[in-house]
Amino acid sequence: MHMVDLIQKKRRGGSLTQEEIHWMIRGYTRGEIPDYQVSALLMAICFQGMDPQETAQLTLAMAQSGASLDLSALPGAKGDKHSTGGVGDKTTLVVAPLAAACGLTMVKLSGRGLGHTGGTVDKLAAIPGFRTDLTVQELLKVASDTGLCLAGHTGNLAPADQKLYALRDVTGTVDSIPLIASSIMSKKLACGAQSILLDVKVGSGALMKTRQEALELAQTMVDIGRRCHRQVACLLTDMDIPLGFAVGNALEVQEAIDTLKGQGPRDVTELSLALTAHLLALAGFGTPKACLEQARQALLDGRGLAKLGQVIQAQGGDPAILTNPRRLPQAEHVLTVLSPITGYLTAMDTEGCGRTCMHLGAGRERKEDPIDLTAGLVFHVKPGDFVQRGEPVAQLFAQDPARLIPAREELLQALSWGDTPPRPQTLIHALVTQDGVQLQ
Amino acid sequence: MHMVDLIQKKRRGGSLTQEEIHWMIRGYTRGEIPDYQVSALLMAICFQGMDPQETAQLTLAMAQSGASLDLSALPGAKGDKHSTGGVGDKTTLVVAPLAAACGLTMVKLSGRGLGHTGGTVDKLAAIPGFRTDLTVQELLKVASDTGLCLAGHTGNLAPADQKLYALRDVTGTVDSIPLIASSIMSKKLACGAQSILLDVKVGSGALMKTRQEALELAQTMVDIGRRCHRQVACLLTDMDIPLGFAVGNALEVQEAIDTLKGQGPRDVTELSLALTAHLLALAGFGTPKACLEQARQALLDGRGLAKLGQVIQAQGGDPAILTNPRRLPQAEHVLTVLSPITGYLTAMDTEGCGRTCMHLGAGRERKEDPIDLTAGLVFHVKPGDFVQRGEPVAQLFAQDPARLIPAREELLQALSWGDTPPRPQTLIHALVTQDGVQLQ
Repeated sequence: MHMVDLIQKKRRGGSLTQEEIHWMIRGYTRGEIPDYQVSALLMAICFQGMDPQETAQLTLAMAQSGASLDLSALPGAKGDKHSTGGVGDKTTLVVAPLAAACGLTMVKLSGRGLGHTGGTVDKLAAIPGFRTDLTVQELLKVASDTGLCLAGHTGNLAPADQKLYALRDVTGTVDSIPLIASSIMSKKLACGAQSILLDVKVGSGALMKTRQEALELAQTMVDIGRRCHRQVACLLTDMDIPLGFAVGNALEVQEAIDTLKGQGPRDVTELSLALTAHLLALAGFGTPKACLEQARQALLDGRGLAKLGQVIQAQGGDPAILTNPRRLPQAEHVLTVLSPITGYLTAMDTEGCGRTCMHLGAGRERKEDPIDLTAGLVFHVKPGDFVQRGEPVAQLFAQDPARLIPAREELLQALSWGDTPPRPQTLIHALVTQDGVQLQ
Repeated sequence: MHMVDLIQKKRRGGSLTQEEIHWMIRGYTRGEIPDYQVSALLMAICFQGMDPQETAQLTLAMAQSGASLDLSALPGAKGDKHSTGGVGDKTTLVVAPLAAACGLTMVKLSGRGLGHTGGTVDKLAAIPGFRTDLTVQELLKVASDTGLCLAGHTGNLAPADQKLYALRDVTGTVDSIPLIASSIMSKKLACGAQSILLDVKVGSGALMKTRQEALELAQTMVDIGRRCHRQVACLLTDMDIPLGFAVGNALEVQEAIDTLKGQGPRDVTELSLALTAHLLALAGFGTPKACLEQARQALLDGRGLAKLGQVIQAQGGDPAILTNPRRLPQAEHVLTVLSPITGYLTAMDTEGCGRTCMHLGAGRERKEDPIDLTAGLVFHVKPGDFVQRGEPVAQLFAQDPARLIPAREELLQALSWGDTPPRPQTLIHALVTQDGVQLQ
C-alpha cells in the first residue's frame, strides 16, 4: 500500500477500505507514515467526508493503536460520559458521583482544557491533594473500592488519536464531523465502558454552532457506537449561554458541590439529572423516567455528595472541601462588574465569556500555558433577568489583579441588553439514540 | 502571521493576500514552516483553487525564492520554450536551434524525465561528451558565443518550487491547475527570458487529458505572464498519439537531427516550425506568418542544424553525431514487433507507449532510477496506416534483452486496430495569447 494512493482516492471522493484505514493508522502511530502525508489526507477528508463504515473503522483503528482499559474485573455495569465542551460545564462532577451512587461503575477519564472551554482534569486539580495522574492499577483499585474513579488520560490510551489531534490542531483540520466523532469515540472505546452517554453542546459557546451540525455529530457518534457494539446515546444541549453561574476551575467545583447538596443552579441540576438518567437507562437500570427518579433520589438523600467525598478521599484529596468552601483555592482579587444599563439581559456571547475567563487565567491558549485555578467569574444574572444600572451582574476572580480591568471590558462586550426579555432558552434540545432522534 | 490561519482561510474558500503568499513561501524555503502545514494548504488549494492574482503571486514568490538568471548582458531578444511533457516530444532540440538561427538568443534550461514522459536533459545526455551541468558563468558564455545554450536546471533557481514539487509528488496534490501553472512559470520567470512560448500537451499521453483542462492551464500560464510582465503565448497540441516515430533518448536525438536536415517526420517538423514561429513572433520578429517563413528558411538552408552543431561543440559534445548516426549510443538488442492483425491502426494509448519505453529502460519510475540512453522504440506505423498481419509495426531497443519480450506485450496492448481508418488527428488545437484563444 502507498499512502499517496490513499490520499488520491480520498481526494477524488472514494471510500477507504478497512485494511487501508488500519494500515494507515498503524503506520502513522509507528512513525512510518510522515505528518505531511497524513495532513494532506486529513484536509481531503475535511472536503470529501467519510462514510459511516470508514468513520467507524477510523475510530476502531485509533482505539486499538495503544493500550485499552479492561474493566471486566469491576463489578456490575460500567458507564462513561463525555461532553464536547462548553463554558461552565461542570456536569461530570455531578453526574459521575450520582450515577455511581445509583450503582453504575464509573471510570471517567478526562482531558485538560484548551481555548475557551474548560477541562475536567483542570477542575479536579482545584481540589487540594486530589491526584488525577493514576496508573491503570491505581485507577482500577479506586473504581473497585468506590464504584467511581475520576482521572486524567493515562499512559498509552489511543495514541493515534493524540497524534492526529495535535496534527489537526496546526493544520486547520479540526472541524470535520467524522474526525471529531472518531477522535472522541476512539478514546471512549479505549476506556472500556459498555454504556456511554454523550453531551453534544450546541450554541455560541460550543464547537458546534448550529443544531444541524450538532445533530450530525451526535448521530455519527451514536452510529460508531452501534458499529463497535457499545450502548451509546447522546443529548443535544444548549451552550448559547454558560451553564450555571460559575465559570473557572475552583469556582465550578464549588458549584458542583452545591448542586450535589441540592442547592445548585436550576440548569446545572436539571441537566445533570437528565444526563445521569439517560446514562443509567442505557446501562439497563430502567426507563429514562424511572432512572430520573433514581438520580433525583440520590441527589436528595445526599448519596451523590457522599460518593464524591469517597472518591476525593480515595484519590488523595481533601474531603473537607465538601463542608468548608474556604478549603478550595481562593482568588486574592475580586472585582464586581456593575450593569452599565437598566434593562433586560437578552443574550450572552458565550464564547466571549469563556475567553474572558481564559484571559483571567482560568484557561490555556496553548497546551503549555499554566493556569490559575482560582480565576474565573460568577454571574449574578442570566438572560431574561431585569437589571438596574449599577447593580452587580458578575464577580471576576484572579490572582493577578492586572487582569481584572481588561476582563471586565471583555465581559461587558459579551453581554447584550434590551427592553424586552428574550425567549426562554431550551436546555435540552434532543435525545439521539440508536433508535432515532427524539426532540425534547 | 500564523500558517494555520492561512490554511483555514483557503479551506473556507478565501483568497490569500500577496503578503501571506510571500511570507509562506519565504518561511517554507527557509524551513521555518513545516511540510505538514504546507501539504494541508496544498490540498485545500486542490479543492478551492486560487484566483489569478493569488496564482501570479505564488509564481512570483517561488521565482524569487532563490537566484535568477540575469540575461541582460546577452545581445538582442531572449526567448524560452517549455513543453508540459509528452511521449516522443523532442521539439526543444529542433526549436531552440531554429529560433537561435533566426537571431533569438535562447537560454533553455530543462529538467530530467519522470514517469512516462521524457526530459530534455536525458536526451542531451545521449550526445557523447555533451555537458548540461553548466555554471551560470559557463551558461552565459555559451549563450553569448553561439546565441544558444541547452542546460540542466542550475544551482539555486526557484528552490521553493523544487521543494513544493517534491512535496506535491508524495501528497496527492500534483494535478491542480494553479499549482501546475505556478510551478512551470516560476522556473521560466527565474530563467530570465522576456518571451516564453509554452506547448501544453493534451491527450492520452499528457498530464492534461481533456482540452478543457489544457485550455485552463494555458490561460492560467498566459495570465501569469501578463501579470509578471513577460510575453507569454501557448500552443495547445496533440498528445493522443506519440510525436514522431522515435521514443527514447538517443533515438529522439537522431530524429531531431533528421528533422533539422529536413528529413524528419511530418508532425515533428510541422510542430517545431509552428513553435519556433510563435516564439519569434512573441519576441517581435514579425507576424506569425512571416516568422514561420523565417523558421522554414532556417530549416531548409541548414542554419538550424549548424546552430545545433555549434552548441554541441560549445558544450563539449561530439558534433560528428550530426553526420554519423553511429556515434550516438546504440542499443545492443533490437526486437521487431509484428502486427498481430490485418487492418487499420486506429488509436494508440500514448501513456501506455510511454510506459513501454520506461520499462525498456528509457525512463525513470523514481527520481533516483538510472536510465538506458539507448532504450526506446521506433514506430513504423501511425494511426490511419493499413497494416498486413506479420508486417513490422515497431522496433524495440534496449541494452537489457530481458526487457524486450514483456515490452512487446505491453506495446501491443497499447495499440487498437479496426476495419476503417480513424479520423485524422489535429496536431495543433489552439493558440492562447494575452489577446484570447484562436482555434487552429
